[in-house]
Amino acid sequence: MADFDVIVIGAGPGGYLAAERAGQAGLKALLIEKQHIGGTCLNEGCIPTKTLLRSSKLYHASVTGQPYAVTVEGAKVDHSAVVARKRAVTASLVAGVKAGLKAAKVKTVEAEAIITGRDADGFAVTAAGETYHGKNLILATGSHPIVPGIPGLADAIKEGFVLTSTEMLEIDSVPSKLCVVGGGVIGLEMATYFAQLGSEIEIVEAAGKVAGNLEADATDVIVKGCEALGMKFHINTKAVSFGKDSVQVECAGKQEEIKCDKVLLCIGRAANTEGYGLESIHVPVENRAIKVDEYCLTGIPGVYAIGDCNGTGMLAHVAYRQAEVAINHILGKEDPMRWAVVPSLVHTEPEAAFTGMTVEEAKAKGIDAVGVKLTMNYSGLYLAENENGTGIMKATFDKKKKTMIGATIVGGPASELITICSMMIDNELPVERMKSYVFPHPTCAEIIREAIFAAKL
Amino acid sequence: MADFDVIVIGAGPGGYLAAERAGQAGLKALLIEKQHIGGTCLNEGCIPTKTLLRSSKLYHASVTGQPYAVTVEGAKVDHSAVVARKRAVTASLVAGVKAGLKAAKVKTVEAEAIITGRDADGFAVTAAGETYHGKNLILATGSHPIVPGIPGLADAIKEGFVLTSTEMLEIDSVPSKLCVVGGGVIGLEMATYFAQLGSEIEIVEAAGKVAGNLEADATDVIVKGCEALGMKFHINTKAVSFGKDSVQVECAGKQEEIKCDKVLLCIGRAANTEGYGLESIHVPVENRAIKVDEYCLTGIPGVYAIGDCNGTGMLAHVAYRQAEVAINHILGKEDPMRWAVVPSLVHTEPEAAFTGMTVEEAKAKGIDAVGVKLTMNYSGLYLAENENGTGIMKATFDKKKKTMIGATIVGGPASELITICSMMIDNELPVERMKSYVFPHPTCAEIIREAIFAAKL
Repeated sequence: MADFDVIVIGAGPGGYLAAERAGQAGLKALLIEKQHIGGTCLNEGCIPTKTLLRSSKLYHASVTGQPYAVTVEGAKVDHSAVVARKRAVTASLVAGVKAGLKAAKVKTVEAEAIITGRDADGFAVTAAGETYHGKNLILATGSHPIVPGIPGLADAIKEGFVLTSTEMLEIDSVPSKLCVVGGGVIGLEMATYFAQLGSEIEIVEAAGKVAGNLEADATDVIVKGCEALGMKFHINTKAVSFGKDSVQVECAGKQEEIKCDKVLLCIGRAANTEGYGLESIHVPVENRAIKVDEYCLTGIPGVYAIGDCNGTGMLAHVAYRQAEVAINHILGKEDPMRWAVVPSLVHTEPEAAFTGMTVEEAKAKGIDAVGVKLTMNYSGLYLAENENGTGIMKATFDKKKKTMIGATIVGGPASELITICSMMIDNELPVERMKSYVFPHPTCAEIIREAIFAAKL
Repeated sequence: MADFDVIVIGAGPGGYLAAERAGQAGLKALLIEKQHIGGTCLNEGCIPTKTLLRSSKLYHASVTGQPYAVTVEGAKVDHSAVVARKRAVTASLVAGVKAGLKAAKVKTVEAEAIITGRDADGFAVTAAGETYHGKNLILATGSHPIVPGIPGLADAIKEGFVLTSTEMLEIDSVPSKLCVVGGGVIGLEMATYFAQLGSEIEIVEAAGKVAGNLEADATDVIVKGCEALGMKFHINTKAVSFGKDSVQVECAGKQEEIKCDKVLLCIGRAANTEGYGLESIHVPVENRAIKVDEYCLTGIPGVYAIGDCNGTGMLAHVAYRQAEVAINHILGKEDPMRWAVVPSLVHTEPEAAFTGMTVEEAKAKGIDAVGVKLTMNYSGLYLAENENGTGIMKATFDKKKKTMIGATIVGGPASELITICSMMIDNELPVERMKSYVFPHPTCAEIIREAIFAAKL
């Protein structure tokens, strides 16, 4: 007989939530984690960066308060105290996760997990010398920063000149010149912290634009914000070799040397698929990620993969959601993953968030779509709180259904506001109905009301 | 023949929006305003206070940044520059309103309006020596601060010792001791500004609690926030007389003298119903406000009253909404006012917002209701951004319908988050469906997800 109804491998946001939900539903759950309870998100991702940004944004606001009639002298930010606070915040959240797991009666083992095969008792997993059997297996093994085979890179990492985001979050002093290789969300957020603390920053991005899938004109706004912090951008530019105190980059066939104290390497993350014994039960791995369907099933009955390791989202909130999708599938409850409104956030200065489809994406799908683009200054609160604010609100509407189908917000609490749009999109709330909803005044959320009224449907 | 399809009296948020929407719908609209385009909200209410609070909150954050490893010396806030900025923000928004009116082809007259009666050409209104005729009349005359007949008060106002919020927003220096008579939303918000700038503040509230209809335990949180800024509260206490440099107050039969430099009087606002010639067409006035139904009709066909002057909400967002309700009624479109989810905001430190029903209110209506109360620290972002955060999230659920029916949030961007709850409530979105919505991480909005999962339905 199987010891457990569910064995979860990996205790990041996907894994710990899956185990907790399993336990809450009365299933016997085992959670195995080899490094940190809380995973990348809590220990070296979302939460640590936001804790750092809390301090740097406060410092930056303090020294740039003159337009609001606030002036300070001798402003200081103590980077090592910021890092210490980050550890305390993380520890507090990890303690919360552990308490949640305990309350849900989840057994937790902190050790490496290896799947050794299946037998009459279910899937066999060994950890810390014990073998456990589970009826169901949830793989939540996460991801790691990609380190490509560029000349000099391996040595530069060994010598501590090049750091990934993991090490960068623990760095003990602020580099005076920092080169960020990879202008995605992680690169821009960490660059914002160090720029606000005074680092000179150069960002090297291989693609034609930074900030991943954020729309081009919204990207322009955050790039201008980054430039106002002194960042320099090199787009369509690749790092071709790493020295001891410089990075050689190439753009349109021309090479250039960027001198710096440190390099942050953040060109992407890859699913963790090796060393777990996936092959022992033939878990399908495709394009370096575990292949899953909309129930997070791997194709092997009883084996699920959620979060970064399935390569579908690489976002903590996708992992959270997939934890529920997998557990509900085990419980026999119809609850497939819905992708239409998974929001994305960029915690730069200003911050940006987007959800659903752009007009172009909608048209490519054959939808008769129309867009609205407004300055955030149409919100009285935004204007009251932002001198020379550059924020924008974009929304996409389906002309036939007369519903919102996408939104991009830059400025104000964009990451909080985007949920309002996602909810309209996910529930296909008719624009006519939304017009009669009372948006409280004064708020930045009123910009969504403005967008709804501005839509030509 | 009537000159206009609609004549709007008063250009506050209700009036200017009604005129704009009328014009956008192709109606010939006239807007008459005797004082400020933008009304109380833009000129002496919502927007001015939020502009002031932007500066004081920034100053306060700068000087209390130590828990975030940020320290400053010699922090200063220049109150007169704050007031100057407030005027500029207001001017910019008023310019925006005027541009909107012009684009909608609204005729605007800046003069006193008197209704003189009705004739074959419709309702007759005189302004600046001209008589205009309108098929429909929208009264949006607003409100004014209540000044009760307390001994010494009239003289104290004349001498500038007692100010209403209108004058307080233009005061040229920060009082060192300020007594705030009336602990409602306006009083607490203005007290927050002056306390953050260093005023010693005593708040005198006649009722048993401050902050109006905000739930008791949420009120406790913001009162503690106010106390942390040095405010002193006198509840169940009435101002009984005003001297030249003191207020005599009474609590449970015992009198006390509060010495201060200035008094802010903000015990409420009353509808403006006099001096407009309402009697000439027999507009019904009851309890000192114009009586209306759910279409904002006064009972006289073609005559509507919206915003503060009908006494239903005394909130700018209610006025905005009622502008649309009235215009849609004129256009023959069914669109009654819905009161279930009109949110209220309190921009203190921390800020608070609420919408829908409390558990007690729901039970009183015979609803089988259940509540959830969580600390905001369940949101990782809130924890990352708030050391010793005191915020709470409360939600009320209908156990039979399995929907959210009320919410109160204190802390974080509560005023922005409340719209997410209002939208769930207004659209009766099933909790089960909301569980499968992907709340982006990390955000304070995730606290709503936590509340949904915590609900025992």
